[in-house]
Amino acid sequence: MPELRKDPVLGRWIIIATERSKRPTDFVVEEFKTTGGFCPLCPGNEKTTPREVLAYGRDPNMPANSAGWQLRVVPNKYPALVIEGDLEKHGEGLYDRMNGIGAHEVVIESPRHEDRFTFLPHDQMVLVFRAFRNRIHDLGRDHRFRYVMVFKNYGRAAGASLEHSHSQLVALPILPRMVISELDGSLSYFKYKDRCVFCDIIRQEAQQDTRVVCQNDYFVTLTPFAPRSPFEMWILPKHHSSSYADQDDQSLSALADIFSETMRRLDACIANVPYNFVLHTQPLGSQPLEHYHWHFEIVPKLTSIAGFEWGTGFYINPMPPEDTCRYLREAL
Amino acid sequence: MPELRKDPVLGRWIIIATERSKRPTDFVVEEFKTTGGFCPLCPGNEKTTPREVLAYGRDPNMPANSAGWQLRVVPNKYPALVIEGDLEKHGEGLYDRMNGIGAHEVVIESPRHEDRFTFLPHDQMVLVFRAFRNRIHDLGRDHRFRYVMVFKNYGRAAGASLEHSHSQLVALPILPRMVISELDGSLSYFKYKDRCVFCDIIRQEAQQDTRVVCQNDYFVTLTPFAPRSPFEMWILPKHHSSSYADQDDQSLSALADIFSETMRRLDACIANVPYNFVLHTQPLGSQPLEHYHWHFEIVPKLTSIAGFEWGTGFYINPMPPEDTCRYLREAL
Repeated sequence: MPELRKDPVLGRWIIIATERSKRPTDFVVEEFKTTGGFCPLCPGNEKTTPREVLAYGRDPNMPANSAGWQLRVVPNKYPALVIEGDLEKHGEGLYDRMNGIGAHEVVIESPRHEDRFTFLPHDQMVLVFRAFRNRIHDLGRDHRFRYVMVFKNYGRAAGASLEHSHSQLVALPILPRMVISELDGSLSYFKYKDRCVFCDIIRQEAQQDTRVVCQNDYFVTLTPFAPRSPFEMWILPKHHSSSYADQDDQSLSALADIFSETMRRLDACIANVPYNFVLHTQPLGSQPLEHYHWHFEIVPKLTSIAGFEWGTGFYINPMPPEDTCRYLREAL
Repeated sequence: MPELRKDPVLGRWIIIATERSKRPTDFVVEEFKTTGGFCPLCPGNEKTTPREVLAYGRDPNMPANSAGWQLRVVPNKYPALVIEGDLEKHGEGLYDRMNGIGAHEVVIESPRHEDRFTFLPHDQMVLVFRAFRNRIHDLGRDHRFRYVMVFKNYGRAAGASLEHSHSQLVALPILPRMVISELDGSLSYFKYKDRCVFCDIIRQEAQQDTRVVCQNDYFVTLTPFAPRSPFEMWILPKHHSSSYADQDDQSLSALADIFSETMRRLDACIANVPYNFVLHTQPLGSQPLEHYHWHFEIVPKLTSIAGFEWGTGFYINPMPPEDTCRYLREAL
């Protein structure tokens, strides 16, 4: 019997379609491999990107935009939004528009073209999470921006166009709809229960122990109760916090540990699977929020978004999260 | 300069990414062609589908599930939801679930395997729209169901797995989130203005005349102000109505005309482009609604849904709808 499940924060319904049930080996994954050729993100080619906004690991005596870096952040050469200009919000009859002001940056996660995020050494992965924190702080000083969206596309099916390991940041002059829904949903719960819904989820999952993939002192990885995709996972801090940018170095080191373990477990189940991850954190300029809890959502690209998903905003998932959790636990 | 645009009903923001702007010939489309082999939807193979729930055009002296039909509706062999059983709504701590009760049906749009929806003769296309109406009425009598979602996936990239021209219906025991958002958004507007937002859109678009693709006495096709994808189009009835299922035969005949013209214009711009269409109509058992307006949304699959879209719920579109409208107008 298929089952309908509701996400307790967003109110989004998911169909666990048992009539279409699958095992990990049923998913066909196209390899995203190094084809060679010119790579604008490789060391030595710094001049082919827009000028860097951050670099880690370069000898301080060397000039910006030279080689020798361990991690580098540059503006996107084909940005979805541009940094220069005013918003000029205006109407047109019943329509609203504004200029596409924002920032769109690329985090080059390693100087080595062959490196994959999943298998980065601990210290290198820590640099990635520090770069996210640094850029959120810096972009947050620009009062035109309301939110910094941090995300990664891995594999062609997940929207990646460059092979060299990278993630992206987009600073937005508006709060995106999905962020508003998550803030609203968690606030409704808080008003009713006086507790953070994510803290309650973590507590209930620890008790039930059927959707906990792995954990350390600071973080837990879950397969969520109502996942959009097989092998969807959330990484949440165990202690309540609404702001990624407020995490200290110790927390980011623990985050690198669990992220690494989580991604290796995923890779052991479905080698080289395309995926997106997205950081969910509080809006820029917000005070700490009692009702909201920052986290990462990792969504493998294993099912297609077709008419039904477009029309309804809910998802058909052929694999219950309790099953994917078991596969992930046994993977390493 | 890129531009941010807001959908006046959903509040969904779109980035018109002019820095990534494209022409129709920039889109690479993989052909979805007839490869031969066994087709379960072809005449003669009626026994390989579940037993039909509707057939048009067969000699009334012939038995059900025999050949000789012009259009046939059958339950999906691999349904996302099943028709037999009770909902048994129950909680599990803070989570909500219910049995996956519903109906999932396939509308076989023509007996001819090579036919494409876009190029169906008028009378055949009318049968498709009558089948939608018939099935909504019939499924609406089952009081477990709240909504019938009608949609079509064309082309592999849009989620189709069978070549033979078909569309689908899913009867749902809940109102999907996207439907709720559309009802809520249009109700807010109605409360403020005492007018239907879709009627206002049609009026403003007729005046501006930059996003009207084509029209007849009953219907108009627009490229919406804030489209998720290049060549997204909406087909709306000119006279206010919230319910597709209440349309008479004359209206469905005019709908077949404009749908056919709309799809041929699209095909003339980008031959064989994969697409989804979704019918947006009022919930089952609802009285006629002053604030809501039924319509079809056609979304070609030309851009990828990557981390950014997942995280934000908004879309990056490389082509302004005024440009796509011009291409579509000039296409035939």
